[in-house]
Amino acid sequence: MARLRLSPPMHWTIIAIGKPSLNWARHGIVDYLNRLTRYGKTEIEYLRAGTTAQNSERLLRASAGSRRIVLDERGVLRDTAAAREVVDRWEMDPGIKRVAFLIGGADGHTDALRREADELWALSPFTLQHELALVVLLEQLYRIQTIKHGEPYHR
Amino acid sequence: MARLRLSPPMHWTIIAIGKPSLNWARHGIVDYLNRLTRYGKTEIEYLRAGTTAQNSERLLRASAGSRRIVLDERGVLRDTAAAREVVDRWEMDPGIKRVAFLIGGADGHTDALRREADELWALSPFTLQHELALVVLLEQLYRIQTIKHGEPYHR
Repeated sequence: MARLRLSPPMHWTIIAIGKPSLNWARHGIVDYLNRLTRYGKTEIEYLRAGTTAQNSERLLRASAGSRRIVLDERGVLRDTAAAREVVDRWEMDPGIKRVAFLIGGADGHTDALRREADELWALSPFTLQHELALVVLLEQLYRIQTIKHGEPYHR
Repeated sequence: MARLRLSPPMHWTIIAIGKPSLNWARHGIVDYLNRLTRYGKTEIEYLRAGTTAQNSERLLRASAGSRRIVLDERGVLRDTAAAREVVDRWEMDPGIKRVAFLIGGADGHTDALRREADELWALSPFTLQHELALVVLLEQLYRIQTIKHGEPYHR
């Protein structure tokens, strides 16, 4: 069924503290970013690492004006179907033009950042190395888009 | 506090269906396998992919005699601290010499395999590409060992 596209495609940004130092993680990130290009604009912004307070402050500033999803161990755990429903809701909401996922440094986020979050998401109950968390998040965004578009998931 | 080691170190095996085809995932797997060598014997065995029934049958056969942990979306979600407690319990149990984590193919496992599992674990409520699941599992086993040994986590 054809669907009218009433608004421009969503702009997705993932903002992380520190560039990935693991070579394989960098390649995994680029792999999923490339797969995501066909579904809209997705980009990653790496911020310089500082203290936890500085990191949270920088993440806040860099995500001003975006729907703010903070990745946090205390966040909500959703399965793929439920996450897809949330993505659908954002894409239908004309007030949301940009979604930013915020990934902290090794010491997580300040309470101030958590208070400014529109949502707190956890990817796993496990503590994940944050470069690996980036790969998991991107793989999930890719999986959600293939489901939404009824396209095969390319392994 | 020094602790008497009364039994030989645990033998860990991860048994997966199909060799990883994503180059970066292969590198991630090797990275964590190398980090794990200092904590005992950890190895990965890849089995030839077939039908779901064949895959589950092969996983069962390859894990005979091991404590069987089946990775499954319907499994228990544990945080890192809780997973570490389970690992501690296994390592203290003289009846457990080998632990095998079983990772299925794209279509998961048969009920027959689930019934033969000692435990069903989920790594995330998200459906994860199974090569990525391998990386997440290995990273978590590495993280648990660094915590147990009071060693720094090397990023």
